[in-house]
Amino acid sequence: MTVERVDLKALGVAARAASVQLAVAATEQKNAALEAIALALRKRQGEILAANRADLDAADEGGLDAYMKDRLLLNPERLEGMAAGVRSIASLPDPVGEVIESRTLPNGLHIERRRTPLGVIGVIYESRPNVTIDIAALCMKAGNAVILRGGSESINSNTILSSLASDAMTSVGLPGGAIQFVRSTDRALVMEMLAMNDVIDLLIPRGSASLVRMVAANATMPAVTGGIGVCHTYVDRGADLDMARAIVVNAKVQRPTVCNALDTVLVHADVARAFLPALAEAFSNEGVEMRCDRRGLSIVGPTTDGLVLKEATDDDWGTEFLSLVAAVKVVDSLDDALAHIERHGSGHSEAIVSEDNKATERFLQEVDAGAVFANASTRFNDGGELGLGAEVAISTSKLHARGPMGLREITSYKWIVRGDGQVRP
Amino acid sequence: MTVERVDLKALGVAARAASVQLAVAATEQKNAALEAIALALRKRQGEILAANRADLDAADEGGLDAYMKDRLLLNPERLEGMAAGVRSIASLPDPVGEVIESRTLPNGLHIERRRTPLGVIGVIYESRPNVTIDIAALCMKAGNAVILRGGSESINSNTILSSLASDAMTSVGLPGGAIQFVRSTDRALVMEMLAMNDVIDLLIPRGSASLVRMVAANATMPAVTGGIGVCHTYVDRGADLDMARAIVVNAKVQRPTVCNALDTVLVHADVARAFLPALAEAFSNEGVEMRCDRRGLSIVGPTTDGLVLKEATDDDWGTEFLSLVAAVKVVDSLDDALAHIERHGSGHSEAIVSEDNKATERFLQEVDAGAVFANASTRFNDGGELGLGAEVAISTSKLHARGPMGLREITSYKWIVRGDGQVRP
Repeated sequence: MTVERVDLKALGVAARAASVQLAVAATEQKNAALEAIALALRKRQGEILAANRADLDAADEGGLDAYMKDRLLLNPERLEGMAAGVRSIASLPDPVGEVIESRTLPNGLHIERRRTPLGVIGVIYESRPNVTIDIAALCMKAGNAVILRGGSESINSNTILSSLASDAMTSVGLPGGAIQFVRSTDRALVMEMLAMNDVIDLLIPRGSASLVRMVAANATMPAVTGGIGVCHTYVDRGADLDMARAIVVNAKVQRPTVCNALDTVLVHADVARAFLPALAEAFSNEGVEMRCDRRGLSIVGPTTDGLVLKEATDDDWGTEFLSLVAAVKVVDSLDDALAHIERHGSGHSEAIVSEDNKATERFLQEVDAGAVFANASTRFNDGGELGLGAEVAISTSKLHARGPMGLREITSYKWIVRGDGQVRP
Repeated sequence: MTVERVDLKALGVAARAASVQLAVAATEQKNAALEAIALALRKRQGEILAANRADLDAADEGGLDAYMKDRLLLNPERLEGMAAGVRSIASLPDPVGEVIESRTLPNGLHIERRRTPLGVIGVIYESRPNVTIDIAALCMKAGNAVILRGGSESINSNTILSSLASDAMTSVGLPGGAIQFVRSTDRALVMEMLAMNDVIDLLIPRGSASLVRMVAANATMPAVTGGIGVCHTYVDRGADLDMARAIVVNAKVQRPTVCNALDTVLVHADVARAFLPALAEAFSNEGVEMRCDRRGLSIVGPTTDGLVLKEATDDDWGTEFLSLVAAVKVVDSLDDALAHIERHGSGHSEAIVSEDNKATERFLQEVDAGAVFANASTRFNDGGELGLGAEVAISTSKLHARGPMGLREITSYKWIVRGDGQVRP
């Protein structure tokens, strides 16, 4: 397709104007727009798949690997999945207007803190075209306009999907301008977008660690930091070792390319001899490469056939592998595990496996991360899994929102004060 | 006094280390430290007043005006007031550990969102030495370490007050390093502090609009924007005009130098003839200069003796006067008032006076500001007045905290997930 010149400023003005209208839109109307999106995903299937075909053809020419092409691919089944996701967002409570707290003061003033939209959200994302619909739907439900900048590989798919979402809003009387898509692969536009702090209230990067770092370094508006997950699972001396093995393996292999996947296993010295050979066997079966510290190596070394086993280097601690590689370290105490996590963790997802209540509670309280787990896989740090319904991102910031960001996490609030003539003495 | 060379990096490291300990401190211990501060404010009164005397002498030499000197002044009564403030912070619920929400998912995972400290807060503030104690007490209660950088005028007072607070913590077994004071008037240190995003989780500027703008432009970490209040009060055609006059006068004169004081009065044309002469008389009595638009001028013009009356210029709309000056504009409708506020307001405090429920609700819903008021003075946009107990700042940001920031607003949260072996299917 021909990529048009994009006037980002004009697009920002349009988004801002639409956001003012959308902020006061009724829940029913927003849900009707979401239903219209779900219907259009079926009705306009031909158009969507044709656009996606164009992206896939370009990917072939560009030599994208099979994994990337799979991420890019849309098909009727995936479109149905997207429609179901949109409908599930429609079924969530509207966060806008929610009264967070209210009370009447002794002077008779009635005060409440009421949830409001943020305004305009900018999202810079990579590859998967379903993100276009997910984010547009979440932002709309929370009353926010959105400026979407997707990856160049999926520009044709994203163009049709964003215009479909915008059309759906217009069809129910909502401002279609609330969904703006940057229809260009010009990289200079990203920097221009990051400078638009007069228009964009929150910038969300969704993609690789390098994208997140680039946004954090250059955004002039508040930006979510996240997406970088160096995740540890600590197997305490009080652990049920079968449970520990199942949790560690799940956290590593269930989807190794994502931010909440396991990177390092810390094992208490008292159970290392009992645990590590069994873990090595499981890792061997799953094709996971083990990078052990000296003590771990001396235990695992000779025992397991077919295992890719290496000695860990200092660089392995604190590395996000995003692949079937796990670092393994034997520690002498809970304190050592806590210190290792404090030093090497990224504040994303950290887990302990233990039946010892005291150790568990210390771990949960003291580890400084968005999500901390006892006897469960770190892979549960996810908006859908934690009951938020969906997520725009997983934040490792401590300001505003931490962990999975659902509808509430893309809102603000205001204080509403009702009096009958009160003045300040 | 001799101002020592300050090693900000070392001070940051100390604050960070202390914050880790303080984060898990018991409520009772934090309250004991607060009580120790309150007691020391009486016990060490002689030292404090001597240090304050040195600041006042320097102020004399520096030619500070009477108003600034009054802000700087400490006396036994003001110290008692500070002690009472600290005790009131002790009496507030501890935000740390508060369970914001919790539930058990169908798969048996028990999840909760629990409030945690932010970590290290940096505060850059001007003049009034009581701020040193207020902020130190609030940060400590919320489990945060704090790095304080006060104004040069009060450096002697701030030095003794911050060391008193730090000593009080140590005396009850808490890490005194959690309260760090930048004991230097070197301005270069401010820029250095704004670059410390590896140590400081949140930067709070407390002082003039120019300080706030400087921090917003240069901080590398998240910073509160606030302190700039261009505040409107809209007198609707449905207003009780006596109430409106009392509210407008209170919002303007009760303390004109602060951010929630009134700047512009918007008056519906239908009541302008009835309202403006009475307002002019009240403003005349209170020494308020009125800057009216043409229509307002034609009504007020000849009627009031002793009133300083000028025609408003375009620059008056959107100006924060911080003095006994008010701009006045006649508008034809609620829509015009809303449009004026959207264009000229700073998102701080906005009020409507009206008995018309429909107009009131539209105003409260549509005005995009930290605090919106119906039939009350904008001067109530204050942590103490809105029941937060105290405040570190009033935010006009839409991220994280909006309006007055009390204890909860200087916290984060984390997700705590407890399972019995759950893995992700």
